[in-house]
Amino acid sequence: MDRDDRVETLSEAECLHLLRTVPIGRVVYTEHALPAVLPVAFEVAPDDRLILGLRAGSSLSRALDGTVAAFQADLLDPVSRSGWSVLVHGRAEVVRDEAEYRRLLRSGPQPWIGGGQQRMFVRITPELVSGRRLLTAGQTLHRA
Amino acid sequence: MDRDDRVETLSEAECLHLLRTVPIGRVVYTEHALPAVLPVAFEVAPDDRLILGLRAGSSLSRALDGTVAAFQADLLDPVSRSGWSVLVHGRAEVVRDEAEYRRLLRSGPQPWIGGGQQRMFVRITPELVSGRRLLTAGQTLHRA
Repeated sequence: MDRDDRVETLSEAECLHLLRTVPIGRVVYTEHALPAVLPVAFEVAPDDRLILGLRAGSSLSRALDGTVAAFQADLLDPVSRSGWSVLVHGRAEVVRDEAEYRRLLRSGPQPWIGGGQQRMFVRITPELVSGRRLLTAGQTLHRA
Repeated sequence: MDRDDRVETLSEAECLHLLRTVPIGRVVYTEHALPAVLPVAFEVAPDDRLILGLRAGSSLSRALDGTVAAFQADLLDPVSRSGWSVLVHGRAEVVRDEAEYRRLLRSGPQPWIGGGQQRMFVRITPELVSGRRLLTAGQTLHRA
């Protein structure tokens, strides 16, 4: 259909692959009963769960812990109007396991802000993963 | 305070100024009872209202029309870990006024996808505007 000629729906595997190529995404949470969006450093673990790197004691970690969160990342080129956007929904929880925490301190994502301060990590277990690739005019869709 | 030494809270005027420097933001809306996030081309009008450029008939415009929406934009440098992020909450409505619509067709934002197809515009009237600037280590805060 003409209206879809520049949008390609991505598979979950493609989404997770693309998420691994960028260091920062945006987490959506509720603050004062309103949706809030904040950029956050993250990584996709080998088991496909997202690990967000935060400062210890941030209000964001309190807002996220135990909730179903939305997490979005994209890579967009405003000139060619191409790129991709991926959205993940899943349960968020602060990493409390001591061994896991120590491992993440060594190799996990550095918080975007507060470098050098005490860190914490929030894990998001993906339940819904969706994404789309936006193609420039003249590009064709590659479907397996 | 140490924990805030790299985060500067922005005034509403600064937020609106920064929003005028980027062509794309992310709108947060509700889809299937879950928060969804989608990149969208936008402009800040002289009256400080946001104008989003969309394809006609998009499900996004239907989801936004008449709701209180959240809109986020940022400019982030992963290498220096500096940049800014701005969040706007406000009522969203499809532009239905014929004269306004025709004016936006001439000079309003081009939709990110579906160029050349029929266009529509959603206007967000800011009610809450908040933002933060993230400074690289060594930068100092400039406060008036």
